[in-house]
Amino acid sequence: MIRSPYLLYLGHSNDEVGIKTSRGLAVFRPEACVGEFRHDDCGLTLDLPRMTFAEAVAAGAKTLVLGIANAGGKLGDDLVRDAIAAIEAGLDVASGLHNRLRDEPSLVAAAARHGRLLHDVRDPRPDLPIGTGKPRAGLRLLTVGTDCSVGKMYATLCLERGMRARGLTADFRATGQTGILIAGSGVPLDAVVADFISGAIEQISPARDDDGWDLIEGQGSLFHPSFAGVSTGLLHGAQADALVLCHDPVREHMRGLPHYAMPGLAETLEANLRVARLTSPDVRAVGVALNTSKLTTAQAERLCADTSDALGLPCTDPFAMGVDPIIDRIIACFAPSSRVATLTH
Amino acid sequence: MIRSPYLLYLGHSNDEVGIKTSRGLAVFRPEACVGEFRHDDCGLTLDLPRMTFAEAVAAGAKTLVLGIANAGGKLGDDLVRDAIAAIEAGLDVASGLHNRLRDEPSLVAAAARHGRLLHDVRDPRPDLPIGTGKPRAGLRLLTVGTDCSVGKMYATLCLERGMRARGLTADFRATGQTGILIAGSGVPLDAVVADFISGAIEQISPARDDDGWDLIEGQGSLFHPSFAGVSTGLLHGAQADALVLCHDPVREHMRGLPHYAMPGLAETLEANLRVARLTSPDVRAVGVALNTSKLTTAQAERLCADTSDALGLPCTDPFAMGVDPIIDRIIACFAPSSRVATLTH
Repeated sequence: MIRSPYLLYLGHSNDEVGIKTSRGLAVFRPEACVGEFRHDDCGLTLDLPRMTFAEAVAAGAKTLVLGIANAGGKLGDDLVRDAIAAIEAGLDVASGLHNRLRDEPSLVAAAARHGRLLHDVRDPRPDLPIGTGKPRAGLRLLTVGTDCSVGKMYATLCLERGMRARGLTADFRATGQTGILIAGSGVPLDAVVADFISGAIEQISPARDDDGWDLIEGQGSLFHPSFAGVSTGLLHGAQADALVLCHDPVREHMRGLPHYAMPGLAETLEANLRVARLTSPDVRAVGVALNTSKLTTAQAERLCADTSDALGLPCTDPFAMGVDPIIDRIIACFAPSSRVATLTH
Repeated sequence: MIRSPYLLYLGHSNDEVGIKTSRGLAVFRPEACVGEFRHDDCGLTLDLPRMTFAEAVAAGAKTLVLGIANAGGKLGDDLVRDAIAAIEAGLDVASGLHNRLRDEPSLVAAAARHGRLLHDVRDPRPDLPIGTGKPRAGLRLLTVGTDCSVGKMYATLCLERGMRARGLTADFRATGQTGILIAGSGVPLDAVVADFISGAIEQISPARDDDGWDLIEGQGSLFHPSFAGVSTGLLHGAQADALVLCHDPVREHMRGLPHYAMPGLAETLEANLRVARLTSPDVRAVGVALNTSKLTTAQAERLCADTSDALGLPCTDPFAMGVDPIIDRIIACFAPSSRVATLTH
């Protein structure tokens, strides 16, 4: 187990999207975060106290979380140097990067020397099954997106909060390193061996008969040429009853790929429903989640209204505006009475 | 390097599809195969001399190839016992199974004791890149299928032979363990970490400017709920100019999944073209390859003719009837003159 509280690492980051792990922890587990570590050239903040490693230890921090997520996930020299300094100051280190801490001899040596632990959150468990696609009981919702990093984890976590607040049973199922750090369990899907993608999702969202929902965190996009395989396996493994489409309206091109335009919302929804139907023939869309953080309130409300009209689905910014319109739709579609009605027809 | 010649392992197998690695080697590298090893309850043969391990060593064999491929790829007790006996008789052991020989302590100990080598063909190289989807020069063909194990590797290898026989430059790019054993290189795609599926394919089929073809071995199926993620990433990484659709006309349901019906050929082709267009907007289908080994010649010819009429594409059994109709279509579509014509319009 990773010991909290955490010191969140920003390092030299100047890419807001790149620090989403650190920010996710600050937002969804604020009680576990004592501060942030950043260098002078880091233009970002999580609005947590800026601390050196020694100050963090004095404030009670147990673990430095390397909550930066660059494509490819290399451990840079700077990162290793900082992690060693943190170890020497008395902190464990947790990382969600592709490259493992355990593969960096200088880190392993420093941890051994000082009696500290290294946590690689992106190590999947070794007993993943092959997916079967067999129909299983329970209600499952999956967030899908036009692109990577458009708010799928946020939307899913906001839905968990919102559904619980309205008396529904709902459990977040994490598929990425930030989600796993927040939820305490899950599968780091991008690190799973390709043959086991759908099986890993079947494993973390098994059959349930309590009328509760598994809310599965989506990954990637069917329209991202680097990662669409992950998204496809996730759709098949999730066997989702409901999809929520997530989108960043100010994204200019596919993340990391200036030569790829963003797909349209209707096109994205249609493609996801088509792929999802292989294992869940009656899957339906129940809402659209926009990240409107770069828009004014008026712009955001207008955009949500227009998007809702265009797609015939409730549309909201889950973080800024809440998720009630989507929950209303979920209840309308999946309340026991409407499910019986569906079966009767 | 894996030392040849090989003794091919059939063990207790009674599932024809399960021994496709052994059979592929026997068919496409006959000069490297001295015999087959099978127990009395094995109802299959590759028409190679049946040998004990000692007899194989006496006949010059250097390596036992565990050419059986069961879903999930567990190493059973029988398999381990046989492999140890082979090592004791003087053979190296090569395996394409998911579970690695190197993770089986009794095998590792036996190999060390007798100075023999263990080869895990399904270990991807460690430097795989993330896919970019950037347009790259060259001509690429990918085989796709209605299901797993419907003849994609055979079709691709037959196309290589056939195209070379007609003076074209064409190189098989292996994506599975059998293909890698035949070609001497490639990527074991089902063992690649999910984030690197498309990047691995970009790596094995880099840009080329010699008017030659990369013929990329397909894997899985967009309609197989266990493995469609692999097929999706493969389509995106291949950036294929041409697709050949492969199908087994006597398959009754998706491999390993009695609860999933086979998709139709037109539906499969349409879905593959749609996914492929993300990275290769002008991709086109150039043929259909059927495995007609369970049909009479008359049935096979009738089925190919009917399929060709229905889809408007040349259709053949590559192994039984040759690949000339498909090569004719490739030349018609992609000969330098028609490519110039396409550019002019």
